[in-house]
This record gives sequence, structure tokens and C-alpha cells, in this order.
Amino acid sequence: MKPILALNAYDPRASGAFDASLTERLRRREKLFGAASVLFYDRPLEFLRAEGCWLFDAAGAAYLDAYNNVPSVGHCHPRVVAAAARQLGTLNIHNRYLHETVLQLAERLLATLPTSLSNVTFACTGSESNDLALRLAREFTGGHGVIVTTAAYHGNTALVTDVSPSSYKRGGPPAHVRAIAPPDGTGLAAGELAVRFAARVTDAILDLERSGVRFSALLIDSIFSSDGIYADPPGFLRAAVDAVHRAGGVVIADEVQPGFGRTGTSLWGFERHGIEPDIVTMGKPMGNGYPIAALVTRPEILSAYCENVGYFNTFAGSPVAAAVASAVLDVIEEEDLMGNARRVGAHLQAKLSTLAARHAALGAVRGAGLYVGVDLRAGSVAAAAALTSAVINGMRERRVLIGAAGLHGTVLKLRPPLSFSIAHADQLLATLDEVLTAIEAAGDGPLPAPSPV
Amino acid sequence: MKPILALNAYDPRASGAFDASLTERLRRREKLFGAASVLFYDRPLEFLRAEGCWLFDAAGAAYLDAYNNVPSVGHCHPRVVAAAARQLGTLNIHNRYLHETVLQLAERLLATLPTSLSNVTFACTGSESNDLALRLAREFTGGHGVIVTTAAYHGNTALVTDVSPSSYKRGGPPAHVRAIAPPDGTGLAAGELAVRFAARVTDAILDLERSGVRFSALLIDSIFSSDGIYADPPGFLRAAVDAVHRAGGVVIADEVQPGFGRTGTSLWGFERHGIEPDIVTMGKPMGNGYPIAALVTRPEILSAYCENVGYFNTFAGSPVAAAVASAVLDVIEEEDLMGNARRVGAHLQAKLSTLAARHAALGAVRGAGLYVGVDLRAGSVAAAAALTSAVINGMRERRVLIGAAGLHGTVLKLRPPLSFSIAHADQLLATLDEVLTAIEAAGDGPLPAPSPV
Repeated sequence: MKPILALNAYDPRASGAFDASLTERLRRREKLFGAASVLFYDRPLEFLRAEGCWLFDAAGAAYLDAYNNVPSVGHCHPRVVAAAARQLGTLNIHNRYLHETVLQLAERLLATLPTSLSNVTFACTGSESNDLALRLAREFTGGHGVIVTTAAYHGNTALVTDVSPSSYKRGGPPAHVRAIAPPDGTGLAAGELAVRFAARVTDAILDLERSGVRFSALLIDSIFSSDGIYADPPGFLRAAVDAVHRAGGVVIADEVQPGFGRTGTSLWGFERHGIEPDIVTMGKPMGNGYPIAALVTRPEILSAYCENVGYFNTFAGSPVAAAVASAVLDVIEEEDLMGNARRVGAHLQAKLSTLAARHAALGAVRGAGLYVGVDLRAGSVAAAAALTSAVINGMRERRVLIGAAGLHGTVLKLRPPLSFSIAHADQLLATLDEVLTAIEAAGDGPLPAPSPV
Repeated sequence: MKPILALNAYDPRASGAFDASLTERLRRREKLFGAASVLFYDRPLEFLRAEGCWLFDAAGAAYLDAYNNVPSVGHCHPRVVAAAARQLGTLNIHNRYLHETVLQLAERLLATLPTSLSNVTFACTGSESNDLALRLAREFTGGHGVIVTTAAYHGNTALVTDVSPSSYKRGGPPAHVRAIAPPDGTGLAAGELAVRFAARVTDAILDLERSGVRFSALLIDSIFSSDGIYADPPGFLRAAVDAVHRAGGVVIADEVQPGFGRTGTSLWGFERHGIEPDIVTMGKPMGNGYPIAALVTRPEILSAYCENVGYFNTFAGSPVAAAVASAVLDVIEEEDLMGNARRVGAHLQAKLSTLAARHAALGAVRGAGLYVGVDLRAGSVAAAAALTSAVINGMRERRVLIGAAGLHGTVLKLRPPLSFSIAHADQLLATLDEVLTAIEAAGDGPLPAPSPV
């Protein structure tokens, strides 16, 4: 079955019941952005300002943000904004001149990573980092076969789209890509998930080589975000990583989703699994919205590639990007946002499990820190996807923003800024309870049209 | 002959004569960035602040910037900085919510372009825009053969590196790429250049199809920046564009270099040639250093691609990016920077020609607006490249920043911020005169070691 595309997307063909102002903007938007335009929610939103975990619309109404992981230290964090404004007004230039702030950021990042990973290459987006990572892996291993998970998303360049099955609208992976099932441990005994996932990786390596494609890399986001969030038990990735290394491949840890403290117990998601990747990529939360990304690897992997091709990225590794990323790291440390993610994430998971006992629609609760997924259950996959959409839109109408994940879009994706508090979590939980109760009250009839608050 | 790589790059193996502080930073830099590190100049520079056309080092010494085209409206322009700071502190979120500023920027950009090009897709970098452009062309035409010029540079993703011969350190273009000689009109009669360049394009199309590669796109930067700057006569691209269209291909105008008024007479470089591209990409100066880029095309070209694959770019088309790009357009208009580029560029070209009459080392002067190239001449290509390097480093020691271009690195590349004044141009000219005089005084002996000012 194909993945559901553009999860939680507004359908322009369904419009018509909006006020004149929204209708006008939707019309202009479709005309300007054409086929590439995707808006969230059945009733798209427009925000004018944001602060902490709150987004505000034109009427001043506040929406609780339990979805956006880019403004990871909180929307418009004053310290990050001040660092950006100061450096933008002082010097904003490329990385072919020296700059102490840029060197210090590189040193600070490396200090958080395994010592074997001692070279940094800055980029502007996680997509650019992953695009480069795949080339490094190809050059270093001499192969170009890549293994990813079934509904993985790793970015938007040509090379990276090939390894992002969740972006395909038609057909399957190209010949050099194998998409394996994500590590769902439901019903498995301790230790069994690690064995099964490693076996899937090994099978995919053999399948690639049988097809005449030499294996290059396992590319994984260790929280398996778009697959539906699979975090436990910590350590289950070790056997797969060993299998990759035995086959002469490299492991690329895509930290764009789990990185920068989100999983609550370590700055990087791969650390939860006690593994040592060969290449680490990072992006989204790195600049709290300022476009900054990076790749970290061993010097011999980087130099193998650079013998053939130069790599330079005009906007990347600028003093502004470095000042912003440094301020983000400062805030994560000083506000103990990793500890907050651990504490609030644990509270959220526990209370979701309690809620699941009262609502048949809620299934398994999974996650780490402030990356939490909840399975929705209904009579069929299609019904579960429709239910997920109804829940997400019901939450949106009650001004709580969440999203969907999973191959079929049947998993609630909860991924707030890391400053999300216990009170915020409780508001999310109360609203979810209310939405599920309303949906249950509608019974087998049509799902209730969400009523605006 | 291979292109010279990493033009004007510091050679770490040649170091040693620097003060302790610079030596220490160079060592840290090499360790951190490894094989991908490239620094400009024999004696690398570190700047602490910048303003208008000036960069300032730690000692407060001012360097005249005649090289950097990203801070196109001037380094740290207060209006652009204020727009960024204001929006960073208000709302910085992805483009899956509506935002009026983003819509207005898209409308404003489209109003400057041929009406057939009515869809905008935002990205973060010119590389991302060109990566997407090549995919659109492939899907729309059903081919994947691409024609570029011999020393072209179009960006740093895997797909775009393939069509950027100036990035290859080894080997030639891949099987689907043809690199044709740039449009050098030296010694040709009026009209002859257009015919010759169109013939090269046609030959390359036939050569691709003989190899079983269906033709897709001609990808050109209409100022031919890394090839050595070939601007005249306006209109010479028309015949080539017609040939592409007759063959069923598309024309991608990469405006990352000539766009946003730099050529002095039109906002976009392709307009000088009276052509209508099928896809236009833009980047570098668009946000004056804030990472923002875009692609503009016809709706049917975008939708052909989007039927198969979704495209979303997290950081792109944010309210911050839109506010910054709008401020850049405001400054270009209100300070008449296009007019300034035309006037100061004409002055610069005229005076360079005068200087060339007195210095045998200076050959042809070419360009449009504030994008100017000057050939350097010596007994051999290698000697001309060494001379170019000596001139660039001699200018740097006298605190004027310029760069190199061309397949063999024998062209001075002058490409200052668009606020460059007649006085700035005169300072550049006087310094160039001084550097050339010093080099001539050294005669056939070793080039003089530049003496620090």
C-alpha cells in the first residue's frame, strides 16, 4: 500500500465555506505556488506572531504549538533573535574568510560527538547535508546502494528524494534503494526487535548485491519520525549498525528530527542506541528557524570525496549562522531544555496511556522525550487515517496544533518546542480527550464537523 | 586542459610566515573543516565587521570589497537588518501556514518576470533551486541531457554538481552532460557570435541524442560568470534559445549571478538578451546574505513534476525570508542600485580599458553593470594564471578584494556590492595600476612578494 501523501493537507477542491479574506488568500496562494502548494488543515491557518509555545492569528487567538520542531527552543526566543540581529548588523559573509565564531561553533559541536567524527561541513538545510552525506558514503564505500525505512523522509534534493519514500506519489524506490519496515517492537520479546531489524538490514544488503548494486549506506533517523515514531528499547539499532559495518557500508545518522536534545536523555538520538555512526547530519532545530545545517564525519570520509569534487556552500557557516546556532545551544543548556523534554515527555506519554485506557480510538503510545506518537485505531487502515485526520482537525479547531505520521497517516505526531511545559501538556491532553469524546458521540455516523471555538 | 580549481585559494602547505594568532586559527580551521576547507588569498583574511562596500579586520583596517555579490545592497544594510530582526522577533515559521508577506513577495517577483512564468517555488539556496529546476526539466521534456558551459558553476548538490564542470577536480562531465565553450565574441563580426553559440548548442543536442541521451535543458548563467564573464552583444543568446525550443528542450536561466539588477539595465540577466526562459532560478543576492532562493516557471512545468513527487522546503518561504527579500527589493528600487550598477559599471569598464592601454598585462575588458571581467595576458596560460594570482594577492595586500574567473583562472573578476561608487571604482583602479606597475618592475624575475600595507 502506498504511503498517504501530504498528510494533514488542505484540499483546495473542498474549499468554499471560508470567509472572504481567507478565500481570497487561498486563491492567491494556489495561483502563485501552483502544484507545489501544500497547506495544513482542512481550514488553513494564518499566524501573525508567535512566542514560546504559542502562535497567534489575526484575531489574536492563541494556538498551542505541539507540532513545530524547528522553533525548538521556543518561537522567537529573545536570546536567539538578539544574537541573529546583532550579527546580521555586524558581519554576514561566507566561510572563505576566517571567523572565530564559526570555528568555535564547529569545536562546540564536535565536543558533543564521538571523537572519531572530527570534521564539520556546514550547509543551509538538512537536505543539503543528507545530499552530501550520500555522496561521501558513495565515494568512501565504492557502492551506491542505500537502505532506508518504508516511510522515511530525509529531504528534498534529487538525490535525497530518491531515498525518501514518503515523498513518492507514484511507484516505488529506484533500483539502488531498499525501503525496509520500520522497527516496530509491538508484541516482541526483549532483544527480538534488534535481531529482526538487523535481519531486515542484512536481507536488504543481500538483495541489493544480488541486483548488482554495491551497498553503500544505511540512512536512518533514529526516532523514525515519519514512519510513526519508534524509539524503544534503546539499543535496538546496535545489531543493525554492526551488520552494516560488517558489509563494508557506512551508517548515516540523520539527526534532523531527533537531534539537539529532543529525545530527552542525550543531545543526539543515536546516542540512545549506543551506536557510533560514520556520518551525522543535522538541520531543522539547529538555528531555531534560521537556515543552518551541518554534516560531521571522519576526515578520511570527507577527504575521499574532496579528492574528486570541491564542496562550497555560499550561505553556510557564516558568522550569522554560527552566532544563531551558538545561541540555540546556549538556550538548550541554560534552560535545561533536554531535561524539560525528558520530564514533560514522560508526563505526556504516561497521561496519553491513561487516556488510551478510556478511548478505544487510541492505541500504542511511543516516543522519547518530546517526540511522541500515538496510534489511532479503527475498523480499517482507511478508517484509522480518516479518524487521525478528524482528530488533528478537531484539535486545530480547538487551537491545539498536532500532526500525523506513519506509512498510512494513522499516527498522531506530537513534537512541540522543547520548552513545552507540564501545563501545556495537560492542555493538549484535555483537548484530545474532548475531541475523542466528540468523535465517539458521533458514533458510526459521519464524523462531526469541527465547530470553531 | 582541466579548469584551475579553487581559484584564489590559500595553500596550507605554503604557510608558516604568519603571526601566531593567524597560524593558530589556520591550524584549528584545517583540523575542523578538513579536506573541504578553502580560504581565499595567500594570506587568509579574518573580518570582524562590515558596512556598505567595506570590510574591517581585527586591527580596524578597512578593505574595499569589489568581490562579494551576496551582500548586494551593501554589507549589513540597516534596512535589511531591521526587517530581518523585526520578523525574527515576530514570527518565523514554515510555508504550510498562510502568510501575507510571503504571498506579496511572490507577487512582486512575478511582476518583474514574463507573464508566462507564473508559479514560484521558494528554496533556501541557489543550489536547491537549480536542483529542482533540473528535475522539472527532466519530467517536462522526458529527457535528461543537459548543456552547460565549460567552466560553469551552478551549485553544490549531487545533481547540480554534475552540471558544474568548475567543481570537477578529476575527469569530465557525466554521460548526460555536455559542456560547450562559452560565448567569447573576441574578433567576431556582429551577429557571428549568436550563430556560433547556437551552433554549439545544436551540436551538443545532436551529440547527446547520438549517445542515446534525450535532450532536456540548456542551463545558463547569462553573464557566464565562472567562464570569465561574457556579456556582449546583448541578444546573442536568442538563436541558442530558439534552437533549444526547436529541439523540445527547456531553457533554465540561472540568475543567481546576474539577477537582482547587477547587469545595470534590467533586473534579470536574461532580459538583456531578449529571451524568455522556461525556468528562472535565483539565489545569492536575494536576501543580502540571509539564505533565500527561488524558482519561477510555468504552471504546467511545475505540475508535471508534482504529479510524481512532492516538494517542500522547511526553511523556505518563511515570513522572515519574505520580509528580508522584500527589503532587498525595496533598497534596490529606492537607492536606484540598478542605475548605479549601470553608471559605475560603465565608468569602471571605460577606465579599465584606459588602464589596459598602459599595461600589457591587461587584455580584454568585458561585462555588464557591476559584473566586470578583465583578461590577464602573459607568455602562456600558466603564466597568465600565475599573474592573475599575483594581481589578486597584490590587491589584497593593498586592501582591495577581487577574485578570479575563467577556465584557467586568467580573468580578474570584479563584482562588488551594487552600492559601489565612482570613488570606490577609482580606488580600485588606482590600486590595480599600482599592483601592475610593481609586477612590471619585477620584470622577468620572480613576482614581487606583496608587501603588507
